[in-house]
Amino acid sequence: MEKNIIIRNATKDDLNDIIGLVEELAIFEKAPNAVTASLETYQEVFASGLISCHVACDNDKVIGMTIFYDTFSTWKGRMMYLEDFYVKPEYRSGGIGSRLFDAVVQEAKNRKCILLKWQVLDWNTEAIKFYKAKNAEIETNWYNGKLWLN
Amino acid sequence: MEKNIIIRNATKDDLNDIIGLVEELAIFEKAPNAVTASLETYQEVFASGLISCHVACDNDKVIGMTIFYDTFSTWKGRMMYLEDFYVKPEYRSGGIGSRLFDAVVQEAKNRKCILLKWQVLDWNTEAIKFYKAKNAEIETNWYNGKLWLN
Repeated sequence: MEKNIIIRNATKDDLNDIIGLVEELAIFEKAPNAVTASLETYQEVFASGLISCHVACDNDKVIGMTIFYDTFSTWKGRMMYLEDFYVKPEYRSGGIGSRLFDAVVQEAKNRKCILLKWQVLDWNTEAIKFYKAKNAEIETNWYNGKLWLN
Repeated sequence: MEKNIIIRNATKDDLNDIIGLVEELAIFEKAPNAVTASLETYQEVFASGLISCHVACDNDKVIGMTIFYDTFSTWKGRMMYLEDFYVKPEYRSGGIGSRLFDAVVQEAKNRKCILLKWQVLDWNTEAIKFYKAKNAEIETNWYNGKLWLN
């Protein structure tokens, strides 16, 4: 099946499908009502270049995606941050996630980034195994600070 | 002493001093040789608008700083990320850190961010106490993934 799956840059017309996958990922991450960002906000940050996305497509159907943006490591320099990464369950184990991840790695190299970063939930052992197989380091000694501004 | 300390937006002429503080922070974080990003890289990402910085100054001397940039929460929308935050030890406990942090909060609000995020080392209890006093949430259930691209 995975042979017919195309990975490509997302366009603004994919954003609605991408939000659908963000919501599926939120359910998997045990936060089913967490997604409150609107399509309009996605459209704005996509148009401004703040975020970029890749999609995996089975014909016209978006079945996987990555969302990423440029950041900066004060220690190392230019960095890319992988904010979201998801493949629909029925399309897993066929290498699509690997191709999506590799496409982000390639894009980060194109942008002269020295480092790709992301986060993974501590209980998500399947994902951690996937990342380790990609030669990633998994750091367990940092906490996230969050302050709501509204 | 803190009365005479000015908080202001950094200019490109502050970047060398800012790197000096990044290096001091790296020593505190037990990674004394971690800073390999060059002044040229800082100048590039500052000029492009990827990063912004505030500095705390005692007359002409830069004694504290924050480095931050725009990111995006796929769940919540526009977000600001506080990458680095440091006050020289001899200037602590006088409220300068609080003023620097509040200035980032204000800037994030100006940029219509819904959320400010950052990271803190799990053993840095003083910093965690500071952030909790700012009504921040501290999340302990995420790991960092890192992949080197060079």
